[in-house]
Amino acid sequence: MINEHNIITYLKTQFPQQIGDDAAVLPISDEQSWVITQDLLIEDVHFRKNYQSPQSLAHKALHVNLSDIAAMGATPHTVLLGLSIPPTDEAYIQSFLEYFSKACHKANVILIGGDTTRAPQHQLFISVTLIGSGNPTHLKYRHTAQVNDIIGIAGELGEAHLGFLTLEQAYSKDNTSSSALGAQQAPMYQQKFLNPVAKTQEGLWLSRQTAVHAMMDISDGLYTDLEKLTRASHCGANIQLEYLTTDELFIHTCKSFELDPLETQLTGGEDYGLLFTVEQHAWEAIAQQFFNQFNYCLKKVGYITKNSNIILTEREKIMPLQIVPFSHF
Amino acid sequence: MINEHNIITYLKTQFPQQIGDDAAVLPISDEQSWVITQDLLIEDVHFRKNYQSPQSLAHKALHVNLSDIAAMGATPHTVLLGLSIPPTDEAYIQSFLEYFSKACHKANVILIGGDTTRAPQHQLFISVTLIGSGNPTHLKYRHTAQVNDIIGIAGELGEAHLGFLTLEQAYSKDNTSSSALGAQQAPMYQQKFLNPVAKTQEGLWLSRQTAVHAMMDISDGLYTDLEKLTRASHCGANIQLEYLTTDELFIHTCKSFELDPLETQLTGGEDYGLLFTVEQHAWEAIAQQFFNQFNYCLKKVGYITKNSNIILTEREKIMPLQIVPFSHF
Repeated sequence: MINEHNIITYLKTQFPQQIGDDAAVLPISDEQSWVITQDLLIEDVHFRKNYQSPQSLAHKALHVNLSDIAAMGATPHTVLLGLSIPPTDEAYIQSFLEYFSKACHKANVILIGGDTTRAPQHQLFISVTLIGSGNPTHLKYRHTAQVNDIIGIAGELGEAHLGFLTLEQAYSKDNTSSSALGAQQAPMYQQKFLNPVAKTQEGLWLSRQTAVHAMMDISDGLYTDLEKLTRASHCGANIQLEYLTTDELFIHTCKSFELDPLETQLTGGEDYGLLFTVEQHAWEAIAQQFFNQFNYCLKKVGYITKNSNIILTEREKIMPLQIVPFSHF
Repeated sequence: MINEHNIITYLKTQFPQQIGDDAAVLPISDEQSWVITQDLLIEDVHFRKNYQSPQSLAHKALHVNLSDIAAMGATPHTVLLGLSIPPTDEAYIQSFLEYFSKACHKANVILIGGDTTRAPQHQLFISVTLIGSGNPTHLKYRHTAQVNDIIGIAGELGEAHLGFLTLEQAYSKDNTSSSALGAQQAPMYQQKFLNPVAKTQEGLWLSRQTAVHAMMDISDGLYTDLEKLTRASHCGANIQLEYLTTDELFIHTCKSFELDPLETQLTGGEDYGLLFTVEQHAWEAIAQQFFNQFNYCLKKVGYITKNSNIILTEREKIMPLQIVPFSHF
């Protein structure tokens, strides 16, 4: 079967050691490397126009790319925008362009080019290429995790996925009323899905900590993304489920969709938090300084192991959870 | 109406002086600038899978971008590939990836990343971002044409468009026989459409001539692209129709589609030749040296004027031709 993993695996055989991180690194000088990422956002695959306003789509199209640059520990500076536009979308696109420009200005990113063309069907197609730069000694990768590193995250788990589900429920064809269960229940989660905010400053800060060994963003869910990180680093991981605490609202919302809260935290995609590994001895100090800097807590979720697989434990007891990873295919 | 021109015009108000050439220029050092371009190729807008093989699509997806880099006078080095894949296309995509890799290797370009996702409908979407580098003193732009410059082109005019028309005719729903008129009549023109070859070496060579003032590639047809060049340079042009000579086959093929050969040369898109302006006194020497180097002739097609419009003349007599420019919208 052809899927993203197979495609990347094949292309790696053709272009060894160039592909695999959130953004590709292009050396410029001893003091500077550029990092570059490309993300596609496709109507009816990644968003629906009936509940994604031009403003939030513009924000998200930029921020999912900003998140890749943040995950490398780089500063974004330049963007290209490709649009394939259905003929009926004029007002939506005009508004999208205004908000995309505003979002770029706000993020200190300059739009320098791109391409526009008509769409063959009713779906809007967006391709964003984003470039940033960073100090080569600070940039973080997926392949540099070390055995016994603590696995930390900055951000929440599973909330964007719950937002997505409540939006789909509220705006489904069978239920066009805005007073539907989902729409009222979890506006915060919906915002997490519609308007994710890239952790640019957090990524930069973490990249400057030498005890932080590896980093990536969480776009496909903790489990799937940690699998990518451990595979790249030729190691495994123990996810300690006792750290995946959550609250009443999260549990209640999961239940309304007949979802297991733990599994939702492990597999829900589109959170755009940061996943990183850090030397055991440095964790406490980094967590404290991070809190002082950003006013929210990093979360410990496990540690890196020598084995090449990911195990889930609850207070050191192995939990036989069945994980169905998130996939666009 | 929203179209590519309006979108670029709007974005220019938001990001002044950054947008407008075939590729955007990013200064790296005194000796080096990078240039970056992004092109979308969309099934049923830019290609059809029933007559575009995975091999030729892979070639074209790369070369339309290589052509943008060539038009700046830069050397391509790095590419990102975005794919939105319909579920039925597995074998086609696998083959496309193999040939895209080969085309990159052949062009000395390294694939470093991209994105893949499923498609919402049956159409394949391709987004290619290509980066090159060049000496800042050699790079050529659209806004630097000077009054009285000779307008030259490297390459043919209108042939790719005739190839497109014969392919559409041969493979239309009403005519699925491969022995159709078009398919037999103009295999050379079809190759021009299916497998355009970017003029990378020619672009580099022309960029090193100080007498060459402005350059771009011809993707939307001579008339439309010259309009872009003269608008950027705040000048006009006189296209001298007596230079637009052609041959029997071209005239015959035009006639079979009830097309005017002259108009087809002026408006046919997708030729991917180079359009440039050069100081009058230097034309002869440059044309001679170019021929020695590349074994085919540059063509003179007119000269730059002070007026801000484009006129068409035949032996100094103004010709009132009605031009319907090529547009994706």
